[in-house]
Amino acid sequence: MTVDASGTFDDSERAAVYRVIAERRDMRHFAGGVVDPAVLRRLLEAANSAPSVGLMVPWRFVRVVSPDVRERVAELVAVERDRTAEALDGRAAEFLRLKVEGIRECAELLVVSVTGERDQHVFGRRTMPHMDLASVACAIQNLWLAARAENLGMGWVSLFEPAELAGVLDLPPGDEPVAVLCLGPVDRFYDRPMLQEQQWAEPRALEELLEER
Amino acid sequence: MTVDASGTFDDSERAAVYRVIAERRDMRHFAGGVVDPAVLRRLLEAANSAPSVGLMVPWRFVRVVSPDVRERVAELVAVERDRTAEALDGRAAEFLRLKVEGIRECAELLVVSVTGERDQHVFGRRTMPHMDLASVACAIQNLWLAARAENLGMGWVSLFEPAELAGVLDLPPGDEPVAVLCLGPVDRFYDRPMLQEQQWAEPRALEELLEER
Repeated sequence: MTVDASGTFDDSERAAVYRVIAERRDMRHFAGGVVDPAVLRRLLEAANSAPSVGLMVPWRFVRVVSPDVRERVAELVAVERDRTAEALDGRAAEFLRLKVEGIRECAELLVVSVTGERDQHVFGRRTMPHMDLASVACAIQNLWLAARAENLGMGWVSLFEPAELAGVLDLPPGDEPVAVLCLGPVDRFYDRPMLQEQQWAEPRALEELLEER
Repeated sequence: MTVDASGTFDDSERAAVYRVIAERRDMRHFAGGVVDPAVLRRLLEAANSAPSVGLMVPWRFVRVVSPDVRERVAELVAVERDRTAEALDGRAAEFLRLKVEGIRECAELLVVSVTGERDQHVFGRRTMPHMDLASVACAIQNLWLAARAENLGMGWVSLFEPAELAGVLDLPPGDEPVAVLCLGPVDRFYDRPMLQEQQWAEPRALEELLEER
């Protein structure tokens, strides 16, 4: 499909783009319900419109429809949550008070993997093979923003052992899952990032992160 | 700053979000000019609004203002372009016909690095330490979309040896650059991804990339 992509964005469109960027949240509290299949389709098409290094398109989306599979994913994440608490040592109790996923409550559960065709693609990756993951993250960010514009919440859970999750989902050889995405209606969006509201961490001011050379 | 993030997006806002996702391009052709400092600031704030694993905020932005530094970045990328052509073997001539960067023509040159404070952050990274890169990619995707909404082009160049680029920029120890971003006015946006227009590769239909379990 050819798109006329050369048009200009006006002030109201620009404001909507900045608004969605500012009001996207990493959600862990969900209100059940369902995601309309046409909406889910739009979200996944938005993800699939992401840039990828050398146009290699290194992502795969798995929609978890089986309650049994969803439960096994939840169990894997619970195991890793405990292991993370152990590794956090001094902050273990504080970490364990946080809600870190909404796998059982969210309307839709998606798993995203980096596909296993990596070795064929050298363009933009000869010195940085991990650029395929960067592309997959751009696709997930597209999905996240589109979901917020659909007034749906999304959370990216990265508390799992990738090889075990690949096993549970019977992913193709070489695929590496990098995200469990909880998606669906929410009662409200956090005013600030939940980890900030819960005093786990603070965002950083741009001044700290910007240098000139 | 507390944002009321609980409002709903209406149809016109949603359309603007989908439009910017569809019409963002990885640009390599630039028209010189300048980026208004207030616009650049908005773009970088959009990047800094990205999600990050455990709210670790693992990104650093370096604005290249010195013509000499810009030239040295361009030279590093030229070297890697030749090495990539060699590695591509059968497609070397085809690759060398592609314009892969606009470093000397773009209004603003930014380098983004993953910061070196990685070991302190275990949350969401115990089994997948590379989640910091995923967060940085989300920040870059925010910047990319905001730039398109400002009617500015951006291209992500990943043709460089990270350690050498870190040396040219005198980055703090542990920082790993992952993106050279060319940013600025363009004469037109590609109707389709440039690598598709140039018959390097084709996007893939969602059906090929979506499974159920």
